[in-house]
Amino acid sequence: MKLTILGCHSATPRWDAHPTSQILEVKGHLFLIDCGEGTQVQLRRYKVKFARIKHIFISHLHGDHFFGLVGLVSTFRLLGREADLHIYGPKGIKEAITLQLKLGKSWTNYGLYFHELDHTESEVVFEDDSVIVKTIPLEHRVYTNGFLISEKITERPLNINACRNLGIDKIYFNKIKQGGDVKAEDGSVIKNETLTLEPGAPKSYAFCSDTVYLPSIVPIIKGATMIYHETTFLESHKDLAIKTKHSTAKEAAIIARDAEVGGLIVGHYSGRYNDYEDFKKEAQTVFENVIVGYDGLEVSF
Amino acid sequence: MKLTILGCHSATPRWDAHPTSQILEVKGHLFLIDCGEGTQVQLRRYKVKFARIKHIFISHLHGDHFFGLVGLVSTFRLLGREADLHIYGPKGIKEAITLQLKLGKSWTNYGLYFHELDHTESEVVFEDDSVIVKTIPLEHRVYTNGFLISEKITERPLNINACRNLGIDKIYFNKIKQGGDVKAEDGSVIKNETLTLEPGAPKSYAFCSDTVYLPSIVPIIKGATMIYHETTFLESHKDLAIKTKHSTAKEAAIIARDAEVGGLIVGHYSGRYNDYEDFKKEAQTVFENVIVGYDGLEVSF
Repeated sequence: MKLTILGCHSATPRWDAHPTSQILEVKGHLFLIDCGEGTQVQLRRYKVKFARIKHIFISHLHGDHFFGLVGLVSTFRLLGREADLHIYGPKGIKEAITLQLKLGKSWTNYGLYFHELDHTESEVVFEDDSVIVKTIPLEHRVYTNGFLISEKITERPLNINACRNLGIDKIYFNKIKQGGDVKAEDGSVIKNETLTLEPGAPKSYAFCSDTVYLPSIVPIIKGATMIYHETTFLESHKDLAIKTKHSTAKEAAIIARDAEVGGLIVGHYSGRYNDYEDFKKEAQTVFENVIVGYDGLEVSF
Repeated sequence: MKLTILGCHSATPRWDAHPTSQILEVKGHLFLIDCGEGTQVQLRRYKVKFARIKHIFISHLHGDHFFGLVGLVSTFRLLGREADLHIYGPKGIKEAITLQLKLGKSWTNYGLYFHELDHTESEVVFEDDSVIVKTIPLEHRVYTNGFLISEKITERPLNINACRNLGIDKIYFNKIKQGGDVKAEDGSVIKNETLTLEPGAPKSYAFCSDTVYLPSIVPIIKGATMIYHETTFLESHKDLAIKTKHSTAKEAAIIARDAEVGGLIVGHYSGRYNDYEDFKKEAQTVFENVIVGYDGLEVSF
């Protein structure tokens, strides 16, 4: 998986600090997660081949997470897009986007499908042979979901040495990777387990923004390879975090620790802070592997 | 008057080419004209004191002219704005903005007033003691207005030499500027015309975008000090101009020439062109005083 942070600042966009948006590359998909104002410009700045985006996940309908969506949808039309586009987000998102397109007499020339969410339990919103996306119900001032994107294990890695030693022809390799046994020349059956290795754990990425400190998400994101968790505030402004239903860096780290994840990316910093390393320092009092999110950051895992 | 071009490119925003938005400073007002996506970032980039904006004029509801409006309205709220904000634009603009604010459960803490336009004749949309704003009905793929912003002549300039020669005390100067006569020491009346000069023509600025070549606007903008007229295409793509209801550089220049304006700023360039000087060259075959619009351009007149 490769994550590109297009923006990870809270509230109002500035020329050097963009609101929330991320691109996750996984198994040939290019998923866009949240779409604050200016996201289409950020996609160009970081040279993302954004025509490849077919699925957009919107956490909630605050402007810094979705005001860039209608512009991106319009731009796809102007660029002659033909591929379907699926948008997953809170109830109301369809009306907001279609009303604006209608006012401009500009409907899309591609299939635009809205998948409106209103469940308060985690649910599967997208699934194919290689990837599954589930909501992570969050608690904020409006209805909000995070998203857990998980690879599926579809193949067992070949045990190349075993195959060589047993003289298996490579025409059988695909069959073996898909779990099949092979007949040896003497007619005996060589079991799949002999020819393959145990697959590693499937990778997963959890996007958790915006939310209060919410321990109920721990079982959902348990063991994720990497998570992004909002850290709008430091503990010194915990009163503001409570008031505005956001999290502190320490709280995000507690979630990361309790969920035993591989790493934590922090972001969605309030405009009052200048040094984002302070978020890392605070989080690391609880959880070691902390990455400071910034616009343009690429993380592979 | 001082005009700042925040963006003057057509269609989709790019990191170095912003969609239409302009700031006009006139008689203490800061008028925002059109508000494409990213306008709030451009306002910050060019250090416009945008809390001073109290009136926003939107020409039409295509994305590159209004998708930045909801973000700016939200940002004003986040910054604690208290002053009223008046938005003038086509019917439907109120629903588009209020729906999005409602979905985010974020109403404004300041007075937000929409003045929806649907007339097809020029009308006065704003007027105070010093400025008057009229619509310029345009013809595009959707209902569109340009805006003519004109100063009012409220004072006559003092004829300082005449005042000195006649021994007029400066305590009378304000009265004289406002058109009053003055009594001389011998009791005789000195007429205002003796003590003042003829005021120059009031300055005016006409914003004309987006539109087909439309000679019917000539009488409305006649004699304007400066106009901006869209030039999406060059004559070499006149077929596209007709098809998409835009203008060529030459057509904008014909409007400028026939309306006998002081100067013509060109802009709203299609993405297919690289050298904007070509627009100036083409326009100058018809009208001499042509200014190439670009993001960040400031023009005082």
